[in-house]
Amino acid sequence: MSAGTIYGLGLGPGDPDLMTVRADRLLRGARHVAFFRKAGRKGQARQIVEGMIPEGACEYPMEYPVTTEIPLTDPAYNRLLSAFYQQCTARLRSLSDTGEDVVVLCEGDPFFYGSFMHLYTRLTGHVPVEVVPAISGMSAAWTATGAPVTWGDDVLTVLMGTLPQDDLAQRIARTDALVIMKIGRNIDKIRAALRQAGRYDQAWLVEYASMPGQTVQRLAEADGRVTPYFSIIILHGQGRRP
Amino acid sequence: MSAGTIYGLGLGPGDPDLMTVRADRLLRGARHVAFFRKAGRKGQARQIVEGMIPEGACEYPMEYPVTTEIPLTDPAYNRLLSAFYQQCTARLRSLSDTGEDVVVLCEGDPFFYGSFMHLYTRLTGHVPVEVVPAISGMSAAWTATGAPVTWGDDVLTVLMGTLPQDDLAQRIARTDALVIMKIGRNIDKIRAALRQAGRYDQAWLVEYASMPGQTVQRLAEADGRVTPYFSIIILHGQGRRP
Repeated sequence: MSAGTIYGLGLGPGDPDLMTVRADRLLRGARHVAFFRKAGRKGQARQIVEGMIPEGACEYPMEYPVTTEIPLTDPAYNRLLSAFYQQCTARLRSLSDTGEDVVVLCEGDPFFYGSFMHLYTRLTGHVPVEVVPAISGMSAAWTATGAPVTWGDDVLTVLMGTLPQDDLAQRIARTDALVIMKIGRNIDKIRAALRQAGRYDQAWLVEYASMPGQTVQRLAEADGRVTPYFSIIILHGQGRRP
Repeated sequence: MSAGTIYGLGLGPGDPDLMTVRADRLLRGARHVAFFRKAGRKGQARQIVEGMIPEGACEYPMEYPVTTEIPLTDPAYNRLLSAFYQQCTARLRSLSDTGEDVVVLCEGDPFFYGSFMHLYTRLTGHVPVEVVPAISGMSAAWTATGAPVTWGDDVLTVLMGTLPQDDLAQRIARTDALVIMKIGRNIDKIRAALRQAGRYDQAWLVEYASMPGQTVQRLAEADGRVTPYFSIIILHGQGRRP
């Protein structure tokens, strides 16, 4: 019996209509479907494919042992996460060993800041693994703004809101087009960094890109509001255009 | 009679199986299909959808008046291109005015360095226009390398090979993960910039990502070869991972 394949199935930004034809087909034919979620939640990836999983398929929620209760810098965080990923990997490998394919649902594009990468590096070389790329959340966000993000020779920089303010400000000042992700509790620092770089008024805030409840507004006009996790900031490049 | 919608239909990196469910459906129901191409060529976007356009649909090739015969810096280049985009826009608007929807085929993701943006800015506000996002060529390229491109707080920078060498080198030295596009005749300059930044040995070259003839190799091992237009250079970030 040959080993089953583990698919890192990119679902894209959230609208199931923006899944690829390949992801759609693999999901609708799946017998084993795994996905990450926070304890007590349905799981965002699982939510995206509501109604698409075949009847009778087995589901494997993989529940994070911690999310924000322990700071990233605490060695305990790494130990806990590492043990968790190891445990998920063992479960997926045991399914593969019985010849069964498994679809692992991934929000966004699996190799672009995705959680699946932590399983991928532990699985690859041991069992067959295939990654199905997908539209990133940032692409849905810049599409939602109704304006092209990069023109001609524009430089695009993608930054995480978790970086220090000065680092953010210097990088924001030096790029043409900009994407900032992982905003959440970093929003005040990000606002300060954008002001420091003199580009606050150019920033757009997109919440829930391509999902129900999508909003698009200038960041300056969203002042004071708390932004959820599914927020992306976009600054458009202004490069060459005939 | 209401105006027809003009769809900027992102096709993704080249494999039709990586088109979105939405793009696939819109294309298979299309009555009018427009696309850019170089004079005398079939057109890359048109090539991707070979066999998918419904029988009886009208095709509208839009042939670039120039590509590389005139330098970008020559004002004549801008004038010619601008007149060309104006002419394409007029043709699309006249179809929309008769109530017909038109699908405009776009390689990659329309708002990310795409040609459709030049039509979009001329159409929007006058006729209904909708952009369907897609997987970018760079996503297919990093997926093809078999290694995640960004981890944790990694900074990703996207550069065009058309930039000056010193600018490239400085930006390459300052980023974690890197994508370089528009390589073609800039390959020697790009190699020099990567060496200048001390990162030449980390660079991967992906040709024809997701297309027939895809190749993945270290750039250092591709020395001496002429790379085609559909080449992307990737440097992977090495950020936090439990």
